Amino acid sequence: MIMDTINIGLLGLGTVGSGLVEILRQPQPRLAARRLKVTRIAVRTVTPERQAQYPDIALTTNSTSIVTDPNIKVVVEAIGGRTAAKELITTALTFGKHVVTANKDLIATDGAELSQIAAAHHVGLYYEAAVMGAIPVLRTLRNAYAGDPISRITGIANGTSNFILTQMIAHGASYDDALSLAQSKGFAEANPANDVDGLDATYKLLILTRFAFGMSPTIDDVSIQGITTLQPQDFVAASIWGYAIKPLAVSELTPDGLCMRVAPHLVPLAHPLAAVRDENNAVLIDSHNVNRLSMVGPGAGALPTANSIVADLLDLADNIHDGNTPERFVDTDTPAVVADAAHRVSPRFVGIRGDDVTREQLAALGISGRVQRGRGRVTVLTGPVTDSAVAQWRQVLTTVPGLELIHILPVL
Amino acid sequence: MIMDTINIGLLGLGTVGSGLVEILRQPQPRLAARRLKVTRIAVRTVTPERQAQYPDIALTTNSTSIVTDPNIKVVVEAIGGRTAAKELITTALTFGKHVVTANKDLIATDGAELSQIAAAHHVGLYYEAAVMGAIPVLRTLRNAYAGDPISRITGIANGTSNFILTQMIAHGASYDDALSLAQSKGFAEANPANDVDGLDATYKLLILTRFAFGMSPTIDDVSIQGITTLQPQDFVAASIWGYAIKPLAVSELTPDGLCMRVAPHLVPLAHPLAAVRDENNAVLIDSHNVNRLSMVGPGAGALPTANSIVADLLDLADNIHDGNTPERFVDTDTPAVVADAAHRVSPRFVGIRGDDVTREQLAALGISGRVQRGRGRVTVLTGPVTDSAVAQWRQVLTTVPGLELIHILPVL
Ligand SMILES: NC(=O)c1ccc[n+]([C@@H]2O[C@H](COP(=O)([O-])OP(=O)(O)OC[C@H]3O[C@@H](n4cnc5c(N)ncnc54)[C@H](OP(=O)(O)O)[C@@H]3O)[C@@H](O)[C@H]2O)c1
Ligand SMILES: NC(=O)c1ccc[n+]([C@@H]2O[C@H](COP(=O)([O-])OP(=O)(O)OC[C@H]3O[C@@H](n4cnc5c(N)ncnc54)[C@H](OP(=O)(O)O)[C@@H]3O)[C@@H](O)[C@H]2O)c1
Repeated sequence: MIMDTINIGLLGLGTVGSGLVEILRQPQPRLAARRLKVTRIAVRTVTPERQAQYPDIALTTNSTSIVTDPNIKVVVEAIGGRTAAKELITTALTFGKHVVTANKDLIATDGAELSQIAAAHHVGLYYEAAVMGAIPVLRTLRNAYAGDPISRITGIANGTSNFILTQMIAHGASYDDALSLAQSKGFAEANPANDVDGLDATYKLLILTRFAFGMSPTIDDVSIQGITTLQPQDFVAASIWGYAIKPLAVSELTPDGLCMRVAPHLVPLAHPLAAVRDENNAVLIDSHNVNRLSMVGPGAGALPTANSIVADLLDLADNIHDGNTPERFVDTDTPAVVADAAHRVSPRFVGIRGDDVTREQLAALGISGRVQRGRGRVTVLTGPVTDSAVAQWRQVLTTVPGLELIHILPVL
Repeated sequence: MIMDTINIGLLGLGTVGSGLVEILRQPQPRLAARRLKVTRIAVRTVTPERQAQYPDIALTTNSTSIVTDPNIKVVVEAIGGRTAAKELITTALTFGKHVVTANKDLIATDGAELSQIAAAHHVGLYYEAAVMGAIPVLRTLRNAYAGDPISRITGIANGTSNFILTQMIAHGASYDDALSLAQSKGFAEANPANDVDGLDATYKLLILTRFAFGMSPTIDDVSIQGITTLQPQDFVAASIWGYAIKPLAVSELTPDGLCMRVAPHLVPLAHPLAAVRDENNAVLIDSHNVNRLSMVGPGAGALPTANSIVADLLDLADNIHDGNTPERFVDTDTPAVVADAAHRVSPRFVGIRGDDVTREQLAALGISGRVQRGRGRVTVLTGPVTDSAVAQWRQVLTTVPGLELIHILPVL
């Protein structure tokens, strides 16, 4: 059977876009058999020098002309951001083009809507690259868990945060030094807010939740805590008690509904996630049949991310060549039931500035457990308490003179 | 769209077969949507009591009647063994039925032939469950690596061996005690030879090699070493030098061709595979784009194994409902090029009985490196040497009176 070439229009030629072009240029027989070809690329700035690097691809600044081009079968969106990307993807789908995107922000917030547009036009909308870069977690959830009820997804979903915490835990670096190093290595952007404040991990958690539990909750349903309050003393205190501190994203199905949390967690040193270092991502899937499956790999970077785009393209290509409508990427969408946050229970790690606070003072506030003190701070490892107890502690601690709450972290 | 029910004929109702029936009985909406139904099961012995447990499924001892039954669309083979299973699968494929099997022995040796029969009859032959139980490694290799050249696959592919070595490393158990415990927990069979001698891991390595490198080498191309020579002293000596000992299966593409080895390896304590304990399996995929992806999960057991059969059934069901011929499970088969074993280089861990052998005596035999001695044995950690040097050591060591070679293990 002679297959037609599948023309791809690429939007964006930054880290991810240029990684994709690089992979498609490598002579790989299994890939070549699918006859995928990038014919046009949209960027913000076209120069003769830039165009000269891509002799067989037409660069343009007119991205609309790509998503409406009758010769383009598949659009890959690698621009980022929500507004322009949403418009372009919507137009592409409406014009009957399959779409692959790495845009977690957009898919986390508008994924359900875009999926419906794709289904209405009988085209595929795939986004494996949007969650945990090279780790094929979305396809695994789709293919291997249809008959296996999942109880919990636990991930290290933000490579920047994991890199920073690894520097702090392994080398005693300060938060600022670790952040600078991450920036100089290209693991953190000049404005790292989305990464260190937990928003990036939250987007990924929302998409994972859709695949694992068939529900589409919103950002407001997630309890979000960043890593910016962490100090080297926290890692020392945690390790004395047998814990590492890792940036986790957790989605759990409890009898009351979904519990979702993004926060630096205390993780027992022997736990598999404690060993996931540097900029790596990881996911742990707990379920009835499989019990526990874990996957670890690079969560970002040009080639790892583009490789997941290639997996999506392959899936589309097989369907296009067979003349089929691609399967929906997520095939269930039941109304989200979110548990009352007040019911979430776990032990807590409480950091307080002011080392003359006594155990009795803490007990009077309802905070008890194992205590370490020194260098101007008190650290407490409590027993299991609810989120509503924690909210009360936060309030009451602001009223005690000479004390300053640094943070309250959950324990896995 | 109303979908037709897909009738499944199941061969075998042991650990794996009954796991499959159990999963299909659970009310899972995504699974139910595929309308998969086991209508007949073949076993060796049918009794009224056994039949009564399956009111809506007909048990029979006549397996041929199932693989030729015009009402059966998909056959799941969960009998094991090579002869009867091969005949039944061949007949099923020839009668136009899709086949799913967990039979690694058969697929490792006759997989290429059976795949051709399947292709000739336009049906699917899938066997995710045959390699590493619940870990979706075959589909991941197929879907995520079409454009990513793999350099090496490193696996813990035999759960029985990993369980035994974990007992020896963590609790100082003797080999025999560890084996008895594995047997009493159901992780090892009464005759554990296939597991502890490395044959089971070799079968899996051959299948992994086909998916990773598109080549089908044979058993004779693999250097195989079992775990039966290991003693508690080995784990002590290794850990003093900073290593764990893990039962690995390694397939590597070198400039000279494939290098395949199944053996207990010394693995640095900080290596991710060193932390994979008990009956778990694990795989590490090294490649150009992704760099390194690892997956860890249960390698055997009723529900984990049957869950992978369900993933295969899902893939088939989507194709059957769409009226497509399922994709071939492996889509390349280039002639196997195997590197000359003499060229394989790694440091070695040499165990010798007889503690009065001197460093000079060893050096005269060409064996040098770091030495530990005590309790009637000498252990040497050498620098990198070739397999042919090791073969020479084996020979020459038999000629020295008062010495007895225990084993020579590779270092990862
Ligand atoms: N970087 C990663 O490792 C990674 C990992 C996973 C997911 N992602 C996601 O992948 C997407 C792209 O990320 P990236 O790191 O590749 O971004 P990037 O390096 O900043 O590249 C963005 C590209 O888009 C082009 N562009 C921006 N606005 C455009 C517009 N309106 N029309 C046409 N072209 C436009 C830019 O053109 P110029 O080159 O002319 O400026 C640039 O080539 C984002 O959604 C991101 O979240 C990235
Ligand atoms: N067990 C695991 O965890 C695991 C994991 C991965 C792969 N596998 C593979 O899965 C396959 C099955 O393993 P298993 O552990 O389920 O085996 P098992 O527990 O020994 O069950 C074998 C079943 O096959 C039936 N059987 C045997 N010969 C038959 C024949 N000629 N005709 C009809 N039925 C026959 C037996 O019937 P009776 O019940 O009447 O004796 C029994 O129900 C093997 O290929 C194995 O390598 C197993």
